[in-house]
Amino acid sequence: MDDGMYVSVSRLRVEIHQVDRLIDAFRARAGLVDAFPGFMGLEVWRSERSPGEVLMVSRWRARADFTAYMKSDAHQLSHDRIPADLQDAIRLERLDHVTGYDVMAR
Amino acid sequence: MDDGMYVSVSRLRVEIHQVDRLIDAFRARAGLVDAFPGFMGLEVWRSERSPGEVLMVSRWRARADFTAYMKSDAHQLSHDRIPADLQDAIRLERLDHVTGYDVMAR
Repeated sequence: MDDGMYVSVSRLRVEIHQVDRLIDAFRARAGLVDAFPGFMGLEVWRSERSPGEVLMVSRWRARADFTAYMKSDAHQLSHDRIPADLQDAIRLERLDHVTGYDVMAR
Repeated sequence: MDDGMYVSVSRLRVEIHQVDRLIDAFRARAGLVDAFPGFMGLEVWRSERSPGEVLMVSRWRARADFTAYMKSDAHQLSHDRIPADLQDAIRLERLDHVTGYDVMAR
């Protein structure tokens, strides 16, 4: 049991042919988040039922670590690196929908 | 990168005063799932925005391991152990909504 662990889920929807590019961009990421205080991991989940729906699931020691990262230069730089046409493909389909969760038990 | 990892998310909604009971029941679980082939972990996430919404997130080596568990006596026994009034509280609010995800990258 890790008390206070926090998970942030960003739900993206892209055209199915863009999913591989999204995952490639994720794999080639600068990795700035990986060194951020409180960061505990990031995963990409693809919905089985709806293959254009992709969740970015990040895990943090506490909510405050996540909000500090969201305000950081590291976060801004990471997003600036996403290719413009891929950014546009995400925007056209649906805005990011972000939901936070407290991990209550494991 | 763990190829083929599979995540199942069950979304439950209960009255806020039942959330602690749900988490207690989870912590006191028989643990039959923990020994099941391919099982890699189970977490309870509570929505920050909607505190009566609780996700049960289970992680599997592959989808086939999850479906084998769902058909097993171990799964049936685990559910039979949930106190009847808690089962009713979950049912009254909303049926389980289960979504599967393939972990594409980590």
